[in-house]
Amino acid sequence: MRMKRGENLIYKESLALFTDLYELTMAYGYWKMGMHNQEAVFHLSFRKWPFKGGFAIAAGLKPLIDYILDFEFTESDISYLSSLKDNANQPLFETAFLKYLRGIELKCDIDAVEEGTLVFPYEPIIRVRGPILQAQILESVILNIINFQTLIATKSARVSLAASGDQVVEFGMRRAQGIDGAISASRASFIGGCESTSHVLAGKLFDIPVRGTMAHSWVMAFDDELKAFMSFAEVMPHNCIFLIDTYDSLEGARNAIRAVRGMAKKDFSLLGVRLDSGDLTHLSVEVRKILDQEGYKDAKIMASNELDEYLIGDMKNQGSKVTIWGVGTNLVTSKDQSALDGVYKLSGIQDEDGKWIDRIKISEQTAKVTLPGHLQVRRFYIEGKYVADAIYDEREELDLHLTKVLDENDKRDISGDIESKDLLIPIFQKGELVYHFPHLKEIQKRTKEELSALDSRMKRFINPEPYFVGLDRNLYAKRKTLIKSMRKK
Amino acid sequence: MRMKRGENLIYKESLALFTDLYELTMAYGYWKMGMHNQEAVFHLSFRKWPFKGGFAIAAGLKPLIDYILDFEFTESDISYLSSLKDNANQPLFETAFLKYLRGIELKCDIDAVEEGTLVFPYEPIIRVRGPILQAQILESVILNIINFQTLIATKSARVSLAASGDQVVEFGMRRAQGIDGAISASRASFIGGCESTSHVLAGKLFDIPVRGTMAHSWVMAFDDELKAFMSFAEVMPHNCIFLIDTYDSLEGARNAIRAVRGMAKKDFSLLGVRLDSGDLTHLSVEVRKILDQEGYKDAKIMASNELDEYLIGDMKNQGSKVTIWGVGTNLVTSKDQSALDGVYKLSGIQDEDGKWIDRIKISEQTAKVTLPGHLQVRRFYIEGKYVADAIYDEREELDLHLTKVLDENDKRDISGDIESKDLLIPIFQKGELVYHFPHLKEIQKRTKEELSALDSRMKRFINPEPYFVGLDRNLYAKRKTLIKSMRKK
Repeated sequence: MRMKRGENLIYKESLALFTDLYELTMAYGYWKMGMHNQEAVFHLSFRKWPFKGGFAIAAGLKPLIDYILDFEFTESDISYLSSLKDNANQPLFETAFLKYLRGIELKCDIDAVEEGTLVFPYEPIIRVRGPILQAQILESVILNIINFQTLIATKSARVSLAASGDQVVEFGMRRAQGIDGAISASRASFIGGCESTSHVLAGKLFDIPVRGTMAHSWVMAFDDELKAFMSFAEVMPHNCIFLIDTYDSLEGARNAIRAVRGMAKKDFSLLGVRLDSGDLTHLSVEVRKILDQEGYKDAKIMASNELDEYLIGDMKNQGSKVTIWGVGTNLVTSKDQSALDGVYKLSGIQDEDGKWIDRIKISEQTAKVTLPGHLQVRRFYIEGKYVADAIYDEREELDLHLTKVLDENDKRDISGDIESKDLLIPIFQKGELVYHFPHLKEIQKRTKEELSALDSRMKRFINPEPYFVGLDRNLYAKRKTLIKSMRKK
Repeated sequence: MRMKRGENLIYKESLALFTDLYELTMAYGYWKMGMHNQEAVFHLSFRKWPFKGGFAIAAGLKPLIDYILDFEFTESDISYLSSLKDNANQPLFETAFLKYLRGIELKCDIDAVEEGTLVFPYEPIIRVRGPILQAQILESVILNIINFQTLIATKSARVSLAASGDQVVEFGMRRAQGIDGAISASRASFIGGCESTSHVLAGKLFDIPVRGTMAHSWVMAFDDELKAFMSFAEVMPHNCIFLIDTYDSLEGARNAIRAVRGMAKKDFSLLGVRLDSGDLTHLSVEVRKILDQEGYKDAKIMASNELDEYLIGDMKNQGSKVTIWGVGTNLVTSKDQSALDGVYKLSGIQDEDGKWIDRIKISEQTAKVTLPGHLQVRRFYIEGKYVADAIYDEREELDLHLTKVLDENDKRDISGDIESKDLLIPIFQKGELVYHFPHLKEIQKRTKEELSALDSRMKRFINPEPYFVGLDRNLYAKRKTLIKSMRKK
């Protein structure tokens, strides 16, 4: 057995079978055809603006890399695969192929956009170049990890924008989609801007600050609310955010104050109170009055209950006094869009003579037409503000006459003098890790910087101005030619 | 270290920290107050009809039990918890408490509704009775696992109803919410009625049939589609469902036939073709004509592309010729409702003399008022058809004058002569497992039987007739008295 080198993984063993069966039947096909070492290039990109918004935040790279570092088909995996049958009740895979899988070591070049970076539709976020069999079998897991974490980091960034500087605590573990649904969501929520999480395991695995005080059950475990609050204050004098809505929120606020006043210890702080039901805006205003009148101007009001970016924005507009937002279900399951539509497409393959052939899928739907070649993204900026991105084939010189991906009539010329950077950077070279992972806090900081480099028109939730992403002249021409030639066939 | 006894878990070690921090701060509070061994009772139930439909299918029990069997706070967990600080920068937990956690062994009674069983709003699905500290710290994980799997089993049952006997293949791994989001979804989808999955690890872990043939990348790896199909047929003659939409679906269907005709081997079967884009209904009709004209009447047409129960129903109404449905994203992420709103509420606690005190949470929202006592559900049926459920306190005799949970004016009397069964059955007694797990296939069979016992009016997707769930006379009266007394306070 190889040394496991992936960090932070909670899994017993390699998850090589965390894949769709067709990756393995295709791998078998490539192997049977003797094509398995032919080099190919694949890209992951998404097609629709998530949440009909103006941006996405790339995330999931580190967990993906951990997966790849641990990648191996174990004996038990092989034994399972050997039990599978085809429709004639014959073994689906022959033994020699399974032996080949057992010994496989990934040797791909993988380039990726770093986590916390702004990304837009049709831009490659991950590029995998290597033996076609290897690049193929990574498809499903790459999609699973990157699609979900990018979705949640984006949602979290939106929620954080709505909270405009207020603390956002991610609260969603209990309603997340499975165990790793929760772990990944906590991680990606932190990348997007959440200050902390309620989720202890995520805190342990990723060094995210954890927050938590009491649930209704604490209050209900005592004969009355006042007794419950006093007991909590006694036990945890410096962790007191009282949940005040078990019976009546305003009376709850008064009980919080009574509890504090009744405390024998002088060394005590009322951090705040939490509202979890009812008209949160109205209650926050009334509770604020009570706290202020009684001299607790520093005590915060936290709110939770099906919050999202829209509701937070709305509450702020209505004059809510909430300054800590507990956001759960709607963030971690991304309620209004439960998946990012990322795809992973082949865009080139070497022929037997080692010459690269560009590939394209044309489909019945224009939006599903793919980009050919070995793609890279160049981002242009002026005085720290992003102005446009160009997708181009890195084997050719970048030609700055750009055409919008889905709109041939929208062209833009970029001056070559503008500052720019390439987004895809090397992560693995021939299977060797060459990337140094930043701490999650650095990634969170990058998200913040990225968002401040984006024009505010593009950060609106409703009808944002789309950021300009174009194909460079060469890529545009190449795609056109390929579509024509495919249609002719 | 204790022996791990949970099966099928992919995790390296106990996930005791897979919880919200407040479970641990409350646990600490109970322990500091000397209340930690006071017995309490909690129930999990959900409040809203999922998908505005007429039923839900309980799921997730087995994974939950596996989690509980493996439950322990490891040294590394304790070390992490000891690093947490409160707001005065003091340790959040004292060492003696952490030592207590390290040695904890769960001794709860857990009763549950078996997987694959129909459940309705406000019915307890899980009941936990035991030392309050223990019953409390299980809250978050119980909610996470049961909420999600019940949601997906329900969604899958709806999709299967829409497919009315056609095969449904679950396809969603690549867009699922994280690794376990995919694993749990595949499991729950099978419970709900999917015939198979594309997801290999789920196949291995749960003995679910796996299906898979080719992606667009296979087609694009060859110079033309015909060559790609012929190669696949050559290599896997008994696993041929050709994906025909890479360039043009109708031409794809013709190429599938050409490939078959060109085959040297006579021992070959054209299982079918798959459509993945465009107007699936129209294309299926045209492809069916082509296949039939050429003598391939047995070849199936499979379709995929953002399918769900509504689209499948619609396509069938329009005369689609699809008979295998590949359902992915919308099923495994439950697109139109990304979470079940299950909650886990304390409903009783023993006082110092061992007397049980009923508890209720009244809240600002009527829908959030909880049920007091030690709850059980009795289901009544006539000639195999379900007629009504009664929620009652199992410590009292069931009185069959029922009142609908959220509608006091809707009352119903049930005759005591009708056949009936209690839904909550013992899973753990004082921490010992007393339940024998059925195979997943038996659970799937139960789902089917349960659905056939439900009146068809309750299985409609639009405006289903709600199944009658009432409180028995005693529970109704008790709740009323408690609300009154809480409001008086």
